[in-house]
Amino acid sequence: MGLITLTTDFGVGSAYVAQLKGVLLSAAPKCRIVDVSHSISPQNIREAALLLRGTAFAFPTGTVHVVVVDPGVGTNRRPIAISAKGMFFVGPDNGVLGHQASMGQATVVHLNKPHLFRQPVSKTFHGRDIFAPVAAELANGIALVDVGTPIKDPEAGILGRPQYNNTTVTGTIVGADNFGNLLTNIPGPRADKSLKPQVLGHNIPWVSTYGEAELGQLIALEGSDGFIEIAIREGSALEVLGEHSIGAACTCYLGESNNVD
Amino acid sequence: MGLITLTTDFGVGSAYVAQLKGVLLSAAPKCRIVDVSHSISPQNIREAALLLRGTAFAFPTGTVHVVVVDPGVGTNRRPIAISAKGMFFVGPDNGVLGHQASMGQATVVHLNKPHLFRQPVSKTFHGRDIFAPVAAELANGIALVDVGTPIKDPEAGILGRPQYNNTTVTGTIVGADNFGNLLTNIPGPRADKSLKPQVLGHNIPWVSTYGEAELGQLIALEGSDGFIEIAIREGSALEVLGEHSIGAACTCYLGESNNVD
Amino acid sequence: MGLITLTTDFGVGSAYVAQLKGVLLSAAPKCRIVDVSHSISPQNIREAALLLRGTAFAFPTGTVHVVVVDPGVGTNRRPIAISAKGMFFVGPDNGVLGHQASMGQATVVHLNKPHLFRQPVSKTFHGRDIFAPVAAELANGIALVDVGTPIKDPEAGILGRPQYNNTTVTGTIVGADNFGNLLTNIPGPRADKSLKPQVLGHNIPWVSTYGEAELGQLIALEGSDGFIEIAIREGSALEVLGEHSIGAACTCYLGESNNVD
Repeated sequence: MGLITLTTDFGVGSAYVAQLKGVLLSAAPKCRIVDVSHSISPQNIREAALLLRGTAFAFPTGTVHVVVVDPGVGTNRRPIAISAKGMFFVGPDNGVLGHQASMGQATVVHLNKPHLFRQPVSKTFHGRDIFAPVAAELANGIALVDVGTPIKDPEAGILGRPQYNNTTVTGTIVGADNFGNLLTNIPGPRADKSLKPQVLGHNIPWVSTYGEAELGQLIALEGSDGFIEIAIREGSALEVLGEHSIGAACTCYLGESNNVD
Repeated sequence: MGLITLTTDFGVGSAYVAQLKGVLLSAAPKCRIVDVSHSISPQNIREAALLLRGTAFAFPTGTVHVVVVDPGVGTNRRPIAISAKGMFFVGPDNGVLGHQASMGQATVVHLNKPHLFRQPVSKTFHGRDIFAPVAAELANGIALVDVGTPIKDPEAGILGRPQYNNTTVTGTIVGADNFGNLLTNIPGPRADKSLKPQVLGHNIPWVSTYGEAELGQLIALEGSDGFIEIAIREGSALEVLGEHSIGAACTCYLGESNNVD
Repeated sequence: MGLITLTTDFGVGSAYVAQLKGVLLSAAPKCRIVDVSHSISPQNIREAALLLRGTAFAFPTGTVHVVVVDPGVGTNRRPIAISAKGMFFVGPDNGVLGHQASMGQATVVHLNKPHLFRQPVSKTFHGRDIFAPVAAELANGIALVDVGTPIKDPEAGILGRPQYNNTTVTGTIVGADNFGNLLTNIPGPRADKSLKPQVLGHNIPWVSTYGEAELGQLIALEGSDGFIEIAIREGSALEVLGEHSIGAACTCYLGESNNVD
């Protein structure tokens, strides 16, 4: 009884979503389907990648996550499937799944077995014709290596990776959540939490929990998805730092010899 | 195979909804989830309470209804669960569930067993960390008394209760449905239906069914959720009485000696 | 374990949708429910019919499709159920299901067995009181002839049918999809594909696949739902031909003796 989640830019109630579900339920009659979102802004790979990063690993082991945000459909971008941390991910190789593809012990395959696809494969709707049929097979228990050929060069994640050097790690603020917390692409455990991240000239103290912060104070902490975020207790860091903070650099100083503030 | 419904103000397609579902499906792998609404206006307890009143008891016995409209999250408002009329309700003790908590033979418990929660419990997302894990346990068949300690003083329902005296019962118009029918908080069976409710100076005749009314006539009848509503056959009472009718008093005269109209 | 889909104009998150689901799950506890759309424009039968045409047959055999776009509820329009191509359809006899009712070997019944309905049947919500209970019975495996009396005169499909004569078939552009492809009511296999359809004075070449077309060229091809559509490779036919193209005639020349273009 497999579990399949859907993340698309098709819009709630669109015919494309219903077709995806029809194909999934035809091929995997016992699967259950969870809509993560069909409200991704059109072709916004970044938004989908951020949503997936924050939600995918809340689901049970074995869940198959399907992402159809696919501006390059019909070009030669590859369709891929990934096994990472006990989950499966199926979608286009356009960077939307790059975060999962780069995880330790992840396996990535190029979906190149046409006998698994819905025929004829349209040039505009690989969600229905490639991703859904393959996701159904994975939900049915087929092995990842049986749906494609392993590849070593998937597209890098659209959210980017921080740069490490001897004394600093510099990442990016990649988005904000509904509470106005600013989300970075810096994995929490790899930054030296004893030191203050810098964003737009602000030195921001690290805390373990919101309880350690004063009201109105900018703080840095590890978010529930394992990445550093910038927040304000009972407030909105996005409002205080402004919309232009999204995309801004976030620098953390490593080691014990720094002398920042 | 438990059934769990969700009513939140998170927005359709938000990461928070996906996280809720991930937690529910991880802890109760066989449960089915029905989205009642994720479009409640932000922090609008009244809207959620009205929606729940009108929909919860259409579901099968044993359904677990989760409500996450929770402006007081992180304060000392209690998380609660309720057993009422064969259903369960899980959410914050802020009045959104007061209607169910006050039903005959309802049992209300304070969710105070941290070993049932997702740890660490965040200060901002009790839906994921407290309500969903407890709802999953209830869907799995755990007894209500095993998820918390009984309490006798839950918050009163946000929709209020009518006032009864010797000759009248006075309630409030608490909202409107999509057809423009005005919904009150007066239970149908307790008002003397032979008498005309008054709203904003209008004496409104009671009918048993729409068929008894003339087109364009304001009428009062018992709605499908058991409460008195003000309607117009093939028309909108909300349009005729205006937006300010929401919140207005609705008075019904009791007994046989009245001389209204 | 029946599968039931829902297409309504109630709005995502409305109480009416939740009530439908509650009734369905109460009467068919093991059924799974798929939301096709609750975002149909109010009372827009045409929009619902087009969505259903494009999605219903992607679902597994035996699926029960419920449509509640029902401006005539409470009048003497009949509630019906249809068996067509291995699927069931339940809804009002107002033309929204006329396409399915007219399919080869379709059976249409008038739902006239009150013991199957939710009592009392409201005048405004046959979705909850008639369509959902009957759909649940069909999902549970009851035979079509046991839910109503066969009829031969269901309403014609709202999307219309093309007119055939010796040399031409003339249909209508009935809508557009999200990609701007214009959808007609002309079944692909019945038009002579070797000839160019005409729309708003444009002679449009027929192609088998998008790959045969030049960028920016208007083309005609058979859509995935089996009807002729007008498209532009990597472009929007709707943008090029304008909003007024919806409702316009589409004429295809039959036979070998034509001299178009």
